[in-house]
Amino acid sequence: MPANNQNNLNNGISVDCVIFGFDFEKLQILLIEREPGKKDNPLDYALPGDLIYNDENLDQAANRVLKELTGLENIYLEQSAAFGSLDRTQRESDRAWLESVRDQPDLRVITISYYSLVNINAFDPKPSSFASKLVWKPVAEIEDLAFDHFDILNQALDNLRNRLKIRPIGFNLLPEKFTLSQLHKLYEAILGRELDKRNFRRKMAKLDLVVRLDEKQQGVPHKPSNFYKFNTENYQKLIEEGYDNFGF
Amino acid sequence: MPANNQNNLNNGISVDCVIFGFDFEKLQILLIEREPGKKDNPLDYALPGDLIYNDENLDQAANRVLKELTGLENIYLEQSAAFGSLDRTQRESDRAWLESVRDQPDLRVITISYYSLVNINAFDPKPSSFASKLVWKPVAEIEDLAFDHFDILNQALDNLRNRLKIRPIGFNLLPEKFTLSQLHKLYEAILGRELDKRNFRRKMAKLDLVVRLDEKQQGVPHKPSNFYKFNTENYQKLIEEGYDNFGF
Repeated sequence: MPANNQNNLNNGISVDCVIFGFDFEKLQILLIEREPGKKDNPLDYALPGDLIYNDENLDQAANRVLKELTGLENIYLEQSAAFGSLDRTQRESDRAWLESVRDQPDLRVITISYYSLVNINAFDPKPSSFASKLVWKPVAEIEDLAFDHFDILNQALDNLRNRLKIRPIGFNLLPEKFTLSQLHKLYEAILGRELDKRNFRRKMAKLDLVVRLDEKQQGVPHKPSNFYKFNTENYQKLIEEGYDNFGF
Repeated sequence: MPANNQNNLNNGISVDCVIFGFDFEKLQILLIEREPGKKDNPLDYALPGDLIYNDENLDQAANRVLKELTGLENIYLEQSAAFGSLDRTQRESDRAWLESVRDQPDLRVITISYYSLVNINAFDPKPSSFASKLVWKPVAEIEDLAFDHFDILNQALDNLRNRLKIRPIGFNLLPEKFTLSQLHKLYEAILGRELDKRNFRRKMAKLDLVVRLDEKQQGVPHKPSNFYKFNTENYQKLIEEGYDNFGF
Protein backbone atom coordinates (compact mmCIF):
# COMPACT_ATOMS: atom_id res chain seq x y z
CA MET A 1 0.00 0.00 0.00
CA PRO A 2 1.19 3.60 -0.54
CA ALA A 3 3.50 4.72 2.29
CA ASN A 4 1.71 8.03 2.76
CA ASN A 5 -1.37 6.17 3.87
CA GLN A 6 0.29 4.44 6.84
CA ASN A 7 -0.96 7.06 9.29
CA ASN A 8 -4.43 6.60 7.98
CA LEU A 9 -4.67 2.88 8.79
CA ASN A 10 -7.27 1.74 11.26
CA ASN A 11 -5.32 -0.95 13.08
CA GLY A 12 -8.40 -2.35 14.73
CA ILE A 13 -10.51 -3.20 11.68
CA SER A 14 -9.90 -5.23 8.55
CA VAL A 15 -12.00 -6.53 5.67
CA ASP A 16 -11.78 -10.00 4.12
CA CYS A 17 -13.22 -10.98 0.76
CA VAL A 18 -14.75 -14.36 -0.05
CA ILE A 19 -14.85 -14.52 -3.85
CA PHE A 20 -16.80 -17.54 -5.06
CA GLY A 21 -16.28 -18.52 -8.68
CA PHE A 22 -18.40 -20.83 -10.80
CA ASP A 23 -16.66 -22.67 -13.65
CA PHE A 24 -19.79 -24.49 -14.95
CA GLU A 25 -18.87 -27.53 -12.86
CA LYS A 26 -17.92 -26.57 -9.32
CA LEU A 27 -18.06 -23.74 -6.84
CA GLN A 28 -14.53 -22.44 -6.27
CA ILE A 29 -12.97 -19.81 -4.03
CA LEU A 30 -10.16 -17.33 -4.67
CA LEU A 31 -7.27 -17.61 -2.19
CA ILE A 32 -3.86 -16.07 -1.60
CA GLU A 33 -1.14 -18.73 -1.56
CA ARG A 34 1.18 -17.31 1.07
CA GLU A 35 4.17 -19.54 0.44
CA PRO A 36 4.12 -20.46 -3.24
CA GLY A 37 6.06 -23.61 -4.02
CA LYS A 38 6.08 -24.94 -0.45
CA LYS A 39 4.43 -28.23 0.43
CA ASP A 40 0.65 -27.92 0.28
CA ASN A 41 -0.61 -26.90 3.71
CA PRO A 42 -4.20 -25.63 4.05
CA LEU A 43 -3.03 -23.08 6.65
CA ASP A 44 -0.89 -21.35 4.00
CA TYR A 45 -3.98 -20.20 2.10
CA ALA A 46 -5.74 -16.99 3.09
CA LEU A 47 -8.60 -14.82 1.94
CA PRO A 48 -7.70 -11.51 0.30
CA GLY A 49 -8.00 -9.01 3.16
CA ASP A 50 -6.30 -6.06 4.85
CA LEU A 51 -6.76 -3.21 7.33
CA ILE A 52 -9.19 -0.45 6.39
CA TYR A 53 -8.30 3.24 6.13
CA ASN A 54 -9.87 5.71 8.52
CA ASP A 55 -11.31 7.80 5.70
CA GLU A 56 -13.24 5.07 3.88
CA ASN A 57 -16.37 3.20 4.82
CA LEU A 58 -16.51 -0.59 5.02
CA ASP A 59 -17.85 -1.20 1.50
CA GLN A 60 -15.19 1.10 0.03
CA ALA A 61 -12.49 -0.67 2.01
CA ALA A 62 -13.60 -4.10 0.76
CA ASN A 63 -13.56 -2.95 -2.86
CA ARG A 64 -10.18 -1.22 -2.50
CA VAL A 65 -8.50 -4.16 -0.73
CA LEU A 66 -9.86 -6.65 -3.27
CA LYS A 67 -8.54 -4.50 -6.11
CA GLU A 68 -5.14 -3.96 -4.48
CA LEU A 69 -4.53 -7.65 -3.85
CA THR A 70 -6.21 -9.28 -6.85
CA GLY A 71 -6.80 -6.60 -9.48
CA LEU A 72 -10.52 -7.46 -9.44
CA GLU A 73 -12.92 -4.52 -9.64
CA ASN A 74 -16.54 -3.78 -10.44
CA ILE A 75 -17.62 -6.84 -8.48
CA TYR A 76 -20.70 -6.55 -6.30
CA LEU A 77 -19.54 -7.38 -2.76
CA GLU A 78 -22.20 -8.24 -0.19
CA GLN A 79 -21.41 -7.90 3.50
CA SER A 80 -21.34 -11.27 5.22
CA ALA A 81 -20.44 -11.01 8.93
CA ALA A 82 -18.09 -9.62 11.58
CA PHE A 83 -15.50 -11.82 13.28
CA GLY A 84 -13.86 -10.81 16.52
CA SER A 85 -12.79 -13.83 18.53
CA LEU A 86 -9.80 -13.14 20.76
CA ASP A 87 -7.61 -15.91 19.35
CA ARG A 88 -8.20 -15.30 15.65
CA THR A 89 -4.62 -14.13 15.00
CA GLN A 90 -2.85 -16.31 17.56
CA ARG A 91 -1.90 -19.35 15.49
CA GLU A 92 1.89 -19.74 15.22
CA SER A 93 1.95 -19.98 11.42
CA ASP A 94 -0.12 -16.80 11.12
CA ARG A 95 1.99 -14.81 13.60
CA ALA A 96 5.11 -14.86 11.41
CA TRP A 97 3.13 -13.70 8.40
CA LEU A 98 1.39 -10.93 10.35
CA GLU A 99 4.76 -9.67 11.58
CA SER A 100 5.97 -9.45 7.99
CA VAL A 101 3.00 -7.41 6.72
CA ARG A 102 1.73 -5.36 9.69
CA ASP A 103 3.18 -2.46 11.65
CA GLN A 104 1.37 -3.50 14.82
CA PRO A 105 1.01 -7.27 14.50
CA ASP A 106 -0.11 -7.68 18.13
CA LEU A 107 -3.07 -5.35 17.97
CA ARG A 108 -6.45 -7.01 18.13
CA VAL A 109 -8.19 -6.86 14.76
CA ILE A 110 -11.88 -7.37 14.11
CA THR A 111 -12.68 -8.24 10.53
CA ILE A 112 -15.78 -7.58 8.45
CA SER A 113 -16.21 -10.15 5.69
CA TYR A 114 -17.72 -9.69 2.25
CA TYR A 115 -18.65 -12.18 -0.45
CA SER A 116 -19.43 -12.33 -4.12
CA LEU A 117 -20.18 -14.93 -6.77
CA VAL A 118 -18.55 -14.50 -10.18
CA ASN A 119 -18.10 -16.37 -13.42
CA ILE A 120 -14.51 -17.61 -13.22
CA ASN A 121 -14.02 -17.24 -16.96
CA ALA A 122 -14.97 -13.56 -16.93
CA PHE A 123 -12.32 -12.48 -14.42
CA ASP A 124 -8.56 -12.80 -14.41
CA PRO A 125 -7.17 -12.13 -10.93
CA LYS A 126 -3.62 -10.75 -10.82
CA PRO A 127 -1.72 -10.90 -7.51
CA SER A 128 -0.19 -7.66 -6.26
CA SER A 129 0.80 -5.91 -3.01
CA PHE A 130 1.56 -8.67 -0.46
CA ALA A 131 -0.36 -11.31 -2.42
CA SER A 132 2.40 -13.17 -4.27
CA LYS A 133 0.17 -15.84 -5.80
CA LEU A 134 -3.58 -16.34 -6.23
CA VAL A 135 -5.36 -19.65 -6.79
CA TRP A 136 -8.92 -20.87 -7.31
CA LYS A 137 -9.73 -23.90 -5.13
CA PRO A 138 -12.90 -26.00 -5.12
CA VAL A 139 -14.87 -25.05 -2.00
CA ALA A 140 -15.75 -28.69 -1.31
CA GLU A 141 -12.06 -29.61 -0.98
CA ILE A 142 -11.16 -27.00 1.62
CA GLU A 143 -10.63 -28.36 5.12
CA ASP A 144 -9.01 -25.38 6.80
CA LEU A 145 -7.46 -21.98 6.05
CA ALA A 146 -5.17 -19.40 7.69
CA PHE A 147 -6.46 -17.40 10.70
CA ASP A 148 -10.23 -17.89 11.15
CA HIS A 149 -10.73 -17.75 7.39
CA PHE A 150 -12.31 -21.21 7.26
CA ASP A 151 -15.07 -19.95 9.58
CA ILE A 152 -15.39 -16.84 7.43
CA LEU A 153 -15.70 -18.98 4.29
CA ASN A 154 -18.38 -21.20 5.86
CA GLN A 155 -20.41 -18.23 7.04
CA ALA A 156 -20.26 -16.66 3.57
CA LEU A 157 -21.34 -19.98 2.04
CA ASP A 158 -24.34 -20.08 4.39
CA ASN A 159 -25.24 -16.53 3.43
CA LEU A 160 -24.89 -17.23 -0.28
CA ARG A 161 -27.13 -20.30 0.03
CA ASN A 162 -29.75 -18.48 2.07
CA ARG A 163 -29.73 -15.67 -0.45
CA LEU A 164 -30.47 -18.13 -3.24
CA LYS A 165 -33.65 -19.16 -1.42
CA ILE A 166 -34.93 -15.63 -1.25
CA ARG A 167 -33.89 -14.39 -4.67
CA PRO A 168 -32.78 -16.40 -7.67
CA ILE A 169 -29.16 -15.46 -8.27
CA GLY A 170 -26.48 -16.66 -10.59
CA PHE A 171 -28.34 -16.29 -13.90
CA ASN A 172 -25.72 -13.70 -14.83
CA LEU A 173 -23.07 -16.43 -14.51
CA LEU A 174 -24.63 -18.44 -17.34
CA PRO A 175 -24.43 -17.63 -21.03
CA GLU A 176 -27.41 -15.69 -22.37
CA LYS A 177 -28.81 -18.92 -23.83
CA PHE A 178 -28.44 -21.89 -21.53
CA THR A 179 -29.79 -25.39 -21.09
CA LEU A 180 -31.84 -26.43 -18.08
CA SER A 181 -28.99 -28.84 -17.22
CA GLN A 182 -26.57 -25.92 -16.92
CA LEU A 183 -29.00 -24.04 -14.67
CA HIS A 184 -29.56 -27.17 -12.60
CA LYS A 185 -25.78 -27.65 -12.20
CA LEU A 186 -25.35 -24.03 -11.09
CA TYR A 187 -27.94 -24.46 -8.33
CA GLU A 188 -26.41 -27.76 -7.23
CA ALA A 189 -22.93 -26.19 -7.15
CA ILE A 190 -24.08 -23.30 -4.98
CA LEU A 191 -26.23 -25.39 -2.65
CA GLY A 192 -23.61 -28.12 -2.39
CA ARG A 193 -26.16 -30.91 -2.73
CA GLU A 194 -28.06 -32.83 -5.37
CA LEU A 195 -31.42 -31.44 -6.43
CA ASP A 196 -34.06 -33.68 -7.92
CA LYS A 197 -34.07 -32.82 -11.62
CA ARG A 198 -37.84 -33.11 -12.11
CA ASN A 199 -38.72 -31.01 -9.07
CA PHE A 200 -36.21 -28.40 -10.14
CA ARG A 201 -37.64 -28.14 -13.66
CA ARG A 202 -41.19 -28.12 -12.33
CA LYS A 203 -40.49 -25.21 -9.97
CA MET A 204 -38.66 -23.22 -12.66
CA ALA A 205 -41.63 -23.76 -14.97
CA LYS A 206 -44.15 -22.85 -12.27
CA LEU A 207 -42.32 -19.59 -11.50
CA ASP A 208 -42.05 -18.84 -15.20
CA LEU A 209 -38.44 -17.77 -14.62
CA VAL A 210 -37.07 -19.19 -17.88
CA VAL A 211 -38.34 -18.97 -21.44
CA ARG A 212 -37.87 -21.85 -23.85
CA LEU A 213 -36.19 -20.74 -27.08
CA ASP A 214 -36.80 -22.22 -30.50
CA GLU A 215 -33.18 -23.33 -30.65
CA LYS A 216 -31.25 -26.45 -29.71
CA GLN A 217 -27.65 -27.33 -28.90
CA GLN A 218 -25.59 -28.28 -31.95
CA GLY A 219 -22.77 -30.76 -32.40
CA VAL A 220 -23.15 -32.43 -29.02
CA PRO A 221 -22.58 -36.19 -28.65
CA HIS A 222 -25.90 -36.62 -26.79
CA LYS A 223 -29.47 -35.74 -27.73
CA PRO A 224 -29.33 -31.95 -28.14
CA SER A 225 -31.04 -29.97 -25.36
CA ASN A 226 -33.24 -26.97 -25.82
CA PHE A 227 -31.89 -23.53 -25.03
CA TYR A 228 -33.63 -21.22 -22.56
CA LYS A 229 -33.25 -17.61 -21.56
CA PHE A 230 -33.90 -15.88 -18.28
CA ASN A 231 -37.35 -14.28 -18.02
CA THR A 232 -36.22 -10.90 -16.70
CA GLU A 233 -39.70 -9.39 -16.98
CA ASN A 234 -41.40 -12.04 -14.88
CA TYR A 235 -38.54 -12.03 -12.39
CA GLN A 236 -39.05 -8.27 -11.87
CA LYS A 237 -42.77 -8.83 -11.49
CA LEU A 238 -42.31 -11.54 -8.86
CA ILE A 239 -39.86 -9.40 -6.86
CA GLU A 240 -42.16 -6.38 -7.03
CA GLU A 241 -45.04 -8.49 -5.76
CA GLY A 242 -42.90 -9.47 -2.78
CA TYR A 243 -42.48 -13.07 -3.87
CA ASP A 244 -39.49 -14.49 -2.02
CA ASN A 245 -39.87 -18.20 -2.01
CA PHE A 246 -37.29 -19.50 -4.46
CA GLY A 247 -36.03 -22.37 -2.32
CA PHE A 248 -35.71 -25.97 -3.48
CA MET B 1 -19.33 0.72 33.63
CA PRO B 2 -16.71 -0.09 36.28
CA ALA B 3 -13.91 2.51 36.32
CA ASN B 4 -11.19 -0.14 36.33
CA ASN B 5 -12.28 -1.24 32.88
CA GLN B 6 -11.66 2.11 31.21
CA ASN B 7 -8.22 1.08 29.98
CA ASN B 8 -9.69 -2.03 28.52
CA LEU B 9 -12.14 -0.24 26.21
CA ASN B 10 -11.78 -0.69 22.48
CA ASN B 11 -12.60 2.80 21.30
CA GLY B 12 -12.95 1.73 17.70
CA ILE B 13 -15.70 -0.91 18.04
CA SER B 14 -19.14 -0.93 19.56
CA VAL B 15 -22.12 -3.27 19.61
CA ASP B 16 -25.79 -2.28 19.23
CA CYS B 17 -28.75 -4.46 20.13
CA VAL B 18 -32.04 -4.53 18.24
CA ILE B 19 -34.49 -6.22 20.62
CA PHE B 20 -37.79 -6.98 18.89
CA GLY B 21 -40.72 -7.73 21.17
CA PHE B 22 -44.04 -9.35 20.24
CA ASP B 23 -47.07 -8.42 22.36
CA PHE B 24 -49.58 -10.66 20.51
CA GLU B 25 -50.60 -7.70 18.37
CA LYS B 26 -47.60 -5.81 17.03
CA LEU B 27 -43.87 -6.06 16.56
CA GLN B 28 -42.18 -3.59 18.91
CA ILE B 29 -38.60 -2.52 19.55
CA LEU B 30 -36.78 -1.68 22.79
CA LEU B 31 -35.22 1.80 22.81
CA ILE B 32 -33.33 4.07 25.17
CA GLU B 33 -35.13 7.38 25.64
CA ARG B 34 -32.18 9.74 25.94
CA GLU B 35 -34.05 12.79 27.23
CA PRO B 36 -37.04 11.55 29.22
CA GLY B 37 -39.78 14.13 29.56
CA LYS B 38 -38.65 16.24 26.61
CA LYS B 39 -40.85 16.76 23.57
CA ASP B 40 -41.08 13.61 21.50
CA ASN B 41 -38.27 13.69 18.92
CA PRO B 42 -37.42 10.47 17.05
CA LEU B 43 -33.71 11.41 17.17
CA ASP B 44 -33.75 11.16 20.98
CA TYR B 45 -34.32 7.40 20.85
CA ALA B 46 -31.35 5.06 20.54
CA LEU B 47 -30.61 1.36 20.49
CA PRO B 48 -28.93 -0.09 23.57
CA GLY B 49 -25.25 -0.16 22.62
CA ASP B 50 -21.75 0.63 23.83
CA LEU B 51 -18.01 0.11 23.18
CA ILE B 52 -16.65 -3.40 23.51
CA TYR B 53 -13.82 -4.42 25.85
CA ASN B 54 -10.57 -5.68 24.42
CA ASP B 55 -10.80 -8.95 26.31
CA GLU B 56 -14.23 -10.09 25.13
CA ASN B 57 -15.41 -11.33 21.76
CA LEU B 58 -18.28 -9.69 19.89
CA ASP B 59 -21.03 -12.02 21.12
CA GLN B 60 -19.88 -11.59 24.72
CA ALA B 61 -19.82 -7.81 24.28
CA ALA B 62 -23.37 -7.75 22.92
CA ASN B 63 -24.67 -9.81 25.83
CA ARG B 64 -22.79 -7.74 28.44
CA VAL B 65 -23.86 -4.38 26.99
CA LEU B 66 -27.50 -5.47 26.75
CA LYS B 67 -27.43 -6.62 30.36
CA GLU B 68 -25.68 -3.46 31.61
CA LEU B 69 -28.15 -1.12 29.93
CA THR B 70 -31.43 -3.04 30.17
CA GLY B 71 -30.98 -5.84 32.72
CA LEU B 72 -31.98 -8.37 30.06
CA GLU B 73 -30.02 -11.59 30.00
CA ASN B 74 -30.26 -15.12 28.65
CA ILE B 75 -31.56 -13.78 25.35
CA TYR B 76 -30.27 -15.36 22.15
CA LEU B 77 -28.65 -12.55 20.18
CA GLU B 78 -28.00 -13.14 16.48
CA GLN B 79 -25.39 -11.03 14.69
CA SER B 80 -27.00 -8.76 12.11
CA ALA B 81 -24.44 -6.54 10.32
CA ALA B 82 -21.51 -4.12 10.64
CA PHE B 83 -21.96 -0.38 10.13
CA GLY B 84 -19.03 1.89 9.43
CA SER B 85 -20.07 4.94 7.44
CA LEU B 86 -17.88 7.98 8.11
CA ASP B 87 -20.73 10.26 9.17
CA ARG B 88 -22.56 7.92 11.51
CA THR B 89 -21.70 9.94 14.63
CA GLN B 90 -21.68 13.41 13.09
CA ARG B 91 -25.25 14.56 13.71
CA GLU B 92 -25.37 17.59 16.03
CA SER B 93 -27.87 16.07 18.46
CA ASP B 94 -25.76 12.93 18.77
CA ARG B 95 -22.47 14.81 19.32
CA ALA B 96 -23.58 16.31 22.63
CA TRP B 97 -24.69 12.94 23.89
CA LEU B 98 -21.48 11.22 22.78
CA GLU B 99 -19.43 13.85 24.59
CA SER B 100 -21.34 13.15 27.77
CA VAL B 101 -20.82 9.37 27.71
CA ARG B 102 -17.50 8.78 25.89
CA ASP B 103 -13.88 9.49 26.77
CA GLN B 104 -12.91 9.91 23.10
CA PRO B 105 -16.11 11.13 21.43
CA ASP B 106 -14.31 12.03 18.19
CA LEU B 107 -12.86 8.62 17.50
CA ARG B 108 -14.37 6.77 14.59
CA VAL B 109 -16.46 3.86 15.81
CA ILE B 110 -17.62 0.91 13.75
CA THR B 111 -20.56 -0.93 15.24
CA ILE B 112 -21.61 -4.57 15.01
CA SER B 113 -25.35 -5.00 15.42
CA TYR B 114 -27.24 -7.90 16.97
CA TYR B 115 -30.92 -8.73 17.08
CA SER B 116 -33.36 -10.90 18.96
CA LEU B 117 -37.10 -11.51 19.09
CA VAL B 118 -38.70 -11.92 22.52
CA ASN B 119 -42.10 -12.20 24.11
CA ILE B 120 -42.63 -8.75 25.62
CA ASN B 121 -44.57 -10.16 28.55
CA ALA B 122 -41.75 -12.49 29.57
CA PHE B 123 -39.12 -9.77 30.01
CA ASP B 124 -39.03 -6.69 32.17
CA PRO B 125 -36.26 -4.33 31.01
CA LYS B 126 -34.76 -2.11 33.73
CA PRO B 127 -32.68 0.89 32.63
CA SER B 128 -29.23 1.25 34.15
CA SER B 129 -25.78 2.71 33.39
CA PHE B 130 -26.31 5.63 30.96
CA ALA B 131 -29.77 4.40 29.94
CA SER B 132 -32.10 6.55 32.02
CA LYS B 133 -35.35 5.28 30.52
CA LEU B 134 -36.35 2.37 28.28
CA VAL B 135 -39.46 2.17 26.11
CA TRP B 136 -41.06 -0.32 23.73
CA LYS B 137 -42.19 1.32 20.49
CA PRO B 138 -44.13 -0.24 17.59
CA VAL B 139 -41.64 -0.83 14.76
CA ALA B 140 -44.17 0.37 12.17
CA GLU B 141 -44.34 3.80 13.80
CA ILE B 142 -40.61 4.52 13.79
CA GLU B 143 -39.49 7.06 11.21
CA ASP B 144 -35.96 7.76 12.40
CA LEU B 145 -33.62 7.19 15.35
CA ALA B 146 -30.38 8.58 16.79
CA PHE B 147 -27.09 8.02 14.91
CA ASP B 148 -27.55 5.47 12.09
CA HIS B 149 -29.78 3.36 14.32
CA PHE B 150 -32.73 3.57 11.92
CA ASP B 151 -30.58 1.87 9.25
CA ILE B 152 -29.48 -0.68 11.84
CA LEU B 153 -33.12 -1.37 12.77
CA ASN B 154 -34.15 -1.82 9.13
CA GLN B 155 -31.27 -4.18 8.42
CA ALA B 156 -32.16 -6.27 11.49
CA LEU B 157 -35.79 -6.36 10.38
CA ASP B 158 -34.72 -7.64 6.94
CA ASN B 159 -32.59 -10.31 8.59
CA LEU B 160 -35.39 -11.35 10.93
CA ARG B 161 -37.82 -11.66 8.01
CA ASN B 162 -35.38 -13.60 5.87
CA ARG B 163 -34.71 -15.90 8.77
CA LEU B 164 -38.42 -16.65 9.06
CA LYS B 165 -38.42 -17.90 5.47
CA ILE B 166 -35.62 -20.35 6.14
CA ARG B 167 -36.63 -21.58 9.58
CA PRO B 168 -39.95 -21.16 11.33
CA ILE B 169 -39.23 -18.98 14.35
CA GLY B 170 -41.34 -17.40 17.00
CA PHE B 171 -43.23 -20.47 18.19
CA ASN B 172 -41.53 -19.94 21.55
CA LEU B 173 -43.26 -16.54 21.75
CA LEU B 174 -46.71 -18.14 21.78
CA PRO B 175 -48.31 -19.96 24.69
CA GLU B 176 -47.87 -23.74 24.60
CA LYS B 177 -51.43 -24.08 23.28
CA PHE B 178 -52.33 -21.48 20.69
CA THR B 179 -54.94 -20.86 18.02
CA LEU B 180 -54.10 -20.67 14.33
CA SER B 181 -55.22 -17.03 14.44
CA GLN B 182 -52.54 -16.26 17.00
CA LEU B 183 -49.90 -17.98 14.88
CA HIS B 184 -51.13 -16.14 11.79
CA LYS B 185 -50.94 -12.82 13.64
CA LEU B 186 -47.37 -13.55 14.78
CA TYR B 187 -46.27 -14.17 11.19
CA GLU B 188 -48.04 -11.06 9.94
CA ALA B 189 -46.45 -8.95 12.71
CA ILE B 190 -42.95 -10.17 11.86
CA LEU B 191 -43.36 -9.91 8.09
CA GLY B 192 -45.13 -6.56 8.32
CA ARG B 193 -47.75 -7.49 5.73
CA GLU B 194 -51.04 -9.34 5.48
CA LEU B 195 -50.91 -13.06 4.73
CA ASP B 196 -53.81 -14.82 3.10
CA LYS B 197 -55.40 -16.85 5.90
CA ARG B 198 -56.26 -19.89 3.80
CA ASN B 199 -52.81 -20.14 2.18
CA PHE B 200 -51.20 -19.77 5.59
CA ARG B 201 -53.26 -22.57 7.11
CA ARG B 202 -52.73 -24.78 4.08
CA LYS B 203 -48.95 -24.42 4.27
CA MET B 204 -48.87 -25.03 8.04
CA ALA B 205 -50.96 -28.16 7.50
CA LYS B 206 -48.82 -29.33 4.58
CA LEU B 207 -45.63 -28.96 6.62
CA ASP B 208 -47.28 -30.71 9.56
CA LEU B 209 -45.74 -28.09 11.85
CA VAL B 210 -48.73 -27.84 14.21
CA VAL B 211 -50.85 -30.51 15.88
CA ARG B 212 -54.56 -29.96 16.47
CA LEU B 213 -55.49 -30.54 20.11
CA ASP B 214 -58.81 -31.89 21.33
CA GLU B 215 -59.47 -28.63 23.16
CA LYS B 216 -61.17 -25.35 22.33
CA GLN B 217 -61.04 -21.78 23.62
CA GLN B 218 -63.47 -21.09 26.47
CA GLY B 219 -65.44 -18.00 27.40
CA VAL B 220 -64.73 -16.11 24.21
CA PRO B 221 -67.39 -13.87 22.65
CA HIS B 222 -66.91 -15.45 19.20
CA LYS B 223 -67.11 -19.07 18.02
CA PRO B 224 -64.35 -20.77 20.06
CA SER B 225 -61.27 -21.73 18.05
CA ASN B 226 -59.38 -24.96 18.33
CA PHE B 227 -56.05 -25.04 20.15
CA TYR B 228 -52.90 -26.32 18.48
CA LYS B 229 -49.41 -27.12 19.65
CA PHE B 230 -46.09 -26.95 17.85
CA ASN B 231 -44.98 -30.23 16.28
CA THR B 232 -41.40 -30.21 17.60
CA GLU B 233 -40.70 -33.73 16.33
CA ASN B 234 -41.66 -33.00 12.75
CA TYR B 235 -39.87 -29.66 12.86
CA GLN B 236 -36.64 -31.45 13.87
CA LYS B 237 -37.18 -33.98 11.10
CA LEU B 238 -37.68 -31.27 8.44
CA ILE B 239 -34.56 -29.40 9.57
CA GLU B 240 -32.48 -32.58 9.61
CA GLU B 241 -33.64 -33.38 6.09
CA GLY B 242 -32.39 -29.96 5.03
CA TYR B 243 -35.87 -28.55 4.40
CA ASP B 244 -35.58 -24.78 4.38
CA ASN B 245 -38.54 -23.44 2.47
CA PHE B 246 -40.83 -21.94 5.09
CA GLY B 247 -41.68 -18.77 3.19
CA PHE B 248 -45.19 -17.49 2.57
